Amino acid sequence: MKIAIAGAGAMGSRYGYMLHEKGNDVLLIDGWEDHVKAINENGLRIDENGTSKNVKIPAVLPKDATEVPDLVILFTKSMGLETMLTSIKNILGPNTKVLCLLNGLGHEETVAKYVDKKNVFMGVTLWTAGLVGPGHVTLTGDGSLEVQNIDSSMTDAAKEICDVLSQAGLKAHYSENVVFSIWRKACVNGTLNSCCTLLDCNIKQFGSLGETSNIIRKIITEFSEVAKHYGVTLDVEETAKGIEAIYDPSQAGEHYPSMHQDLIQHHRRTEIDYINGYVSRKAKELGIAAPYNDLITSFIHAKEDLLV
Amino acid sequence: MKIAIAGAGAMGSRYGYMLHEKGNDVLLIDGWEDHVKAINENGLRIDENGTSKNVKIPAVLPKDATEVPDLVILFTKSMGLETMLTSIKNILGPNTKVLCLLNGLGHEETVAKYVDKKNVFMGVTLWTAGLVGPGHVTLTGDGSLEVQNIDSSMTDAAKEICDVLSQAGLKAHYSENVVFSIWRKACVNGTLNSCCTLLDCNIKQFGSLGETSNIIRKIITEFSEVAKHYGVTLDVEETAKGIEAIYDPSQAGEHYPSMHQDLIQHHRRTEIDYINGYVSRKAKELGIAAPYNDLITSFIHAKEDLLV
Repeated sequence: MKIAIAGAGAMGSRYGYMLHEKGNDVLLIDGWEDHVKAINENGLRIDENGTSKNVKIPAVLPKDATEVPDLVILFTKSMGLETMLTSIKNILGPNTKVLCLLNGLGHEETVAKYVDKKNVFMGVTLWTAGLVGPGHVTLTGDGSLEVQNIDSSMTDAAKEICDVLSQAGLKAHYSENVVFSIWRKACVNGTLNSCCTLLDCNIKQFGSLGETSNIIRKIITEFSEVAKHYGVTLDVEETAKGIEAIYDPSQAGEHYPSMHQDLIQHHRRTEIDYINGYVSRKAKELGIAAPYNDLITSFIHAKEDLLV
Repeated sequence: MKIAIAGAGAMGSRYGYMLHEKGNDVLLIDGWEDHVKAINENGLRIDENGTSKNVKIPAVLPKDATEVPDLVILFTKSMGLETMLTSIKNILGPNTKVLCLLNGLGHEETVAKYVDKKNVFMGVTLWTAGLVGPGHVTLTGDGSLEVQNIDSSMTDAAKEICDVLSQAGLKAHYSENVVFSIWRKACVNGTLNSCCTLLDCNIKQFGSLGETSNIIRKIITEFSEVAKHYGVTLDVEETAKGIEAIYDPSQAGEHYPSMHQDLIQHHRRTEIDYINGYVSRKAKELGIAAPYNDLITSFIHAKEDLLV
């Protein structure tokens, strides 16, 4: 299958690499010039299980993508999605399927501005990967993903996409609850990412604090109020318990969430507007109160103003 | 006048020193042993306007105070007030006036547990001082204070206290709005102290952030809702503008608030429960919502758990 990875950072590179290894015709598209140049000159360097190899996969800047693929997998940062879609709109053919695997909320609405609803597929991925530098990623751990069509007539196409991904070892499952899973994952990010960033701590430390149990339930309650309006029922207590399981150091406990890495460690802007900020914004539109998410969003933006 | 300073840190030492210089019979009472010992051995070292002197003023631990004074000035940290009152209750005679100058909200209720209402006087001070180390303080800048009786029959006594303080250069004014001034000052602390601590920035930086105008008004709105129940009317916009005047570097702008010094710089517990935490607690008792102050209080306690 002819597949373009739009946003070939850590996760996009993982997907691109695994799909390429299985014999798909993969193109990596990314806006970071040094990264694209390094991949084209030396191949994509993959560190995995203590071994290292350089894999020849073509890479281009978004403006230089010209061939229409069968499938585009969107893997930009949230704030880069719209720019990417604008740049690559000439390769989005009438039959090009678009699978959106970004973290965060509200991306379906953005994709729908550029892609016919029948070609839009939403997914949630549990794979991880790290970007070491230009053209260089590390792959650790196991993962899987869920995929769902948006247009009810496109179930078979969603299952086909799952097959292609699974043949490459990505363990894709067709699901009828992807929107639920997106919200559920957003709750994880909306508690652990934003609070660990504000408090400057890792997930295990956050879990050990006396106030944490109370804070996360307040945040999730507001997520669930907004989610209702998208037909998603989030059980606050069950969602909270799911998050609490992550504090375990044998899980991700010792890990600093990506938002902490972005803002505190690398002084980059965060995805807050697509997590707590999305809930805050939508709550305002819906006329419901979301003060905890309002304040957390404000504090993260304030910290961005200080550090970026 | 026979005056005991209960809590002889930076501010208590300033008051004790100035009252002693005017000829009052001053006793410094403090729970920090090294401080008491240093004062008794070498005198209280005062650095002021580039000169330094050591002043002989007696100092004792709270449990060692035995003589009943005419006036006790309470100057502990908020969380030390109850312990101090318990320790010195034997020197609180039937005619001993007690002037409470602590920062924060709710102290009147605590003092009332130990002192007859007619002997309780509340005040707000705008003086500043710094504690360099045991027995050593620096005095900078100018100041003044407001004093008010709680019992309506005690106006003359409040004015007398003002006279004694003013004769010592402390510029005390009798006021009928001390409770308003306490709330007003608590709004300053409840915005600048807690937010600069959470965001790890100074007052000038905080003032420059895009979200600040919105954040402080949300906090003050909740303060004003609770203040109403204490007969105090806080105009949110006017209070916010008063706080915004402090961002000016020619005012306190470059300064890190005391809570930042306590928690971020010295890893000590903060007075949050007597500022935002008081509003949060009282709102709950009153059945009104104060989510911004709830969350700020939770976050500061979480940060205490991480750093103290």
